Order: sequence, then C-alpha cells, then structure tokens
Amino acid sequence: MGRTSDARSKILAAARSLIELRGYTALGVAEICREAEVPKGSFYYFFDSKEALALAVIDEHWTAQRRDWERALRGADQPLLRLRRLFEETRTTQRAVQDSRGSVVGCMFGSLSLELSNQAEAIRERLQHIFDAQVDMVEEVITAALEHGDITVADTRRAARSVVAQLEGQVLFAKLYNDTDPLDALWANALALLRAGTPADTAAMA
Amino acid sequence: MGRTSDARSKILAAARSLIELRGYTALGVAEICREAEVPKGSFYYFFDSKEALALAVIDEHWTAQRRDWERALRGADQPLLRLRRLFEETRTTQRAVQDSRGSVVGCMFGSLSLELSNQAEAIRERLQHIFDAQVDMVEEVITAALEHGDITVADTRRAARSVVAQLEGQVLFAKLYNDTDPLDALWANALALLRAGTPADTAAMA
Repeated sequence: MGRTSDARSKILAAARSLIELRGYTALGVAEICREAEVPKGSFYYFFDSKEALALAVIDEHWTAQRRDWERALRGADQPLLRLRRLFEETRTTQRAVQDSRGSVVGCMFGSLSLELSNQAEAIRERLQHIFDAQVDMVEEVITAALEHGDITVADTRRAARSVVAQLEGQVLFAKLYNDTDPLDALWANALALLRAGTPADTAAMA
Repeated sequence: MGRTSDARSKILAAARSLIELRGYTALGVAEICREAEVPKGSFYYFFDSKEALALAVIDEHWTAQRRDWERALRGADQPLLRLRRLFEETRTTQRAVQDSRGSVVGCMFGSLSLELSNQAEAIRERLQHIFDAQVDMVEEVITAALEHGDITVADTRRAARSVVAQLEGQVLFAKLYNDTDPLDALWANALALLRAGTPADTAAMA
C-alpha cells in the first residue's frame, strides 16, 4: 500500500510540474510516467483518463493553496493587513518557484481557465468552484474591513471579484515577463479598488 | 496571385478561430487545412512552421485590435471617456463573439501568454511587445487625464499596467464563466485604480 500511494503521488507531482510549465494539452501520459519514474501501465491503475488526472492535480493544488489563503486571510489582525499578507505570500511563492525553476509559473487555475474553459466542461466547473471559493474568502475580509470602517464599497461581491481579477491579471504579466515585480502593485491596487486610504495612510496599520 | 493570397487568408482565419477556441498546442496543421478548405501541401508554402503561423495570426489580430484601441483611446473627447469607450467596445466585441459562437473566447493575447510564455520564446516576445503597446496607449490617456485634473496617480506607467491587468483578469472570468457580466466592472474599477471620482461623479461627463 505504501508503495502504491507513493506511485500515485509521484504521478501527481510530475503532472503538476508539467502542467505548470506547459499546460494541459501538451501533457502526455508517457512523459508523465517517465518524469515520475513509474511504469507506464500504472497510470491507468490510478487514473481513468488524462482529464481525471488533471482534476486530481487541481484538487491537490487547491487543497494546499486554500490552506495558505485561509492562514493569510483568517488571522486575528486587521482585515486589510490580512489581504496584504495574501499578496506578499503570493509574491514570495512566485519568486521562490522562479528562483528554483528559472520561470515564473503563474497561477495554475488562471492558466487552465484560459486554456480549457471552452473544451473541458468538468475542468471548467472545478475551476469555477475554486475561483468562487477564492472570491468568498476575499469577500469575507472585505466585509470585515467595511464593518471596521477601513473601506467604502457598495457591492462586496463585486469588489472581491475585482481584487481577485487584479491578482490574476498581474500574475499573467509576471508570467509573461518572467518577472515578479508586477505583483508589487497588488496591495496599492487593492486599496484603490476598495476605496481605502493610500498605502501611506494605511502604513500606520503595520 | 489572388487565389494564392486567398489561401493564406483562409489558413489564417481558420487558425485564428481554432486558437481562440482551444489554444495553440491543440492546433494541428491537418485540421487547420481541413477547416480552411485548402490542400494540406499549401500550408508550408505560406508558413515555415506552426510557430510562424501563430506569429502571423497574432500580428494580424493585433493590427486589427490596435486600430480599434487607437480609435477608442485617441478621440478628441475627455480622456477618461475614451477609456470608458475602450471597455464598452471590449464588452460589445466579447458579447458578439459569444452570441455567434456560443462561447466567450476572451483575449487571444492573454490566453497565449499563459499557455506559451515558458515554452515559445518568439511568441512570448511578440506578446510582450503587444502588451507594452497596450500599456503605452492606456498610459497616454492616463497622462492626459492627469493633466486634465481628473485623476491622481503617482506613477502613470504602473497605473496603466494595472488598468490592463484588471482588464485581463476580468476577461479571464468572462471566459471561465462564459458570461460577459464581469466586464461591466471595468469602468468603475479603472476609476478606482486611477483614484478618480466615483462613476456617479463622472457620469456628468457623458
């Protein structure tokens, strides 16, 4: 059993790494198995199809990322500072991957959204749920910041979606230019989108 | 000659439509020729490789889109209104494609950025130039709005990049949810990012 689940983990890790680098369509079962150093036959023991594998990779990545987002966004400190922590951690994570692999890999969920939305309905639905959950978490913080009197927004849902959209857009630039600098704008932009004070005003929070 | 350039145009149109629907990696030369109704042999008469075709598709699409952006952004009216026109036209275009093809196709440049940045250097460079040019055009408008006293931003380049990033992020959501509603937020968000008045304040401009 230990050996079996080890092979599954290796396949998932190899697939994740290949998806992050080149997307889903370019992914081949033979290459995944070679990369994972497992016999090719074992792939279909664990996964019915390439799509089933992609869904498992997405789920595993989201389980880890949701934990990170919850830790960042559900602390006891002021709501906007939690949002800032999320952006800082995003930048740190992207920079660490760039340092180790030479490339900013960006956001797997955003990349797969653009690659697959119009051709793989099961994957599209899973990605919709993930982005819904991200927007939920950001909306919680925005609602808390509103109650705390830090911001003025009329529609917390729309504001949360805009903050996540801005994150995805800047991550796109980070990947395209292989440069994490665009992510430095996230905090000031979120304050602007939420019609909070300027970063200088809110520096006193830190 | 007329017939020759007609075959090239048909190949470009078919490739563009297939790239918008399923991305670059999924593209096959045989399928493009079938879709374009040209003999398979003629493909390599016009294009050295699939990458050369993709670059031609990107250039053709950008030539048309740059014209649209220039028309929207370089009018004689107030700078912020020009920006609003760009967002309105983006929404109109995305909705028209959705009506005719059943799917929001999103932004070809953003999609290819996430799909190919780390695997096709020539395409990455072309896309960087396009986004640089988009940011240039938006920065021109922002600079004019600043001189006009409509907004307050410290760094016009960064602000322009943030406006384009927000556009890409909302277009990502439009594609993922197959729904153009996220694009309705672009105008209000741009005003917020530029620290202009609220849409209500600026309604008087219209």
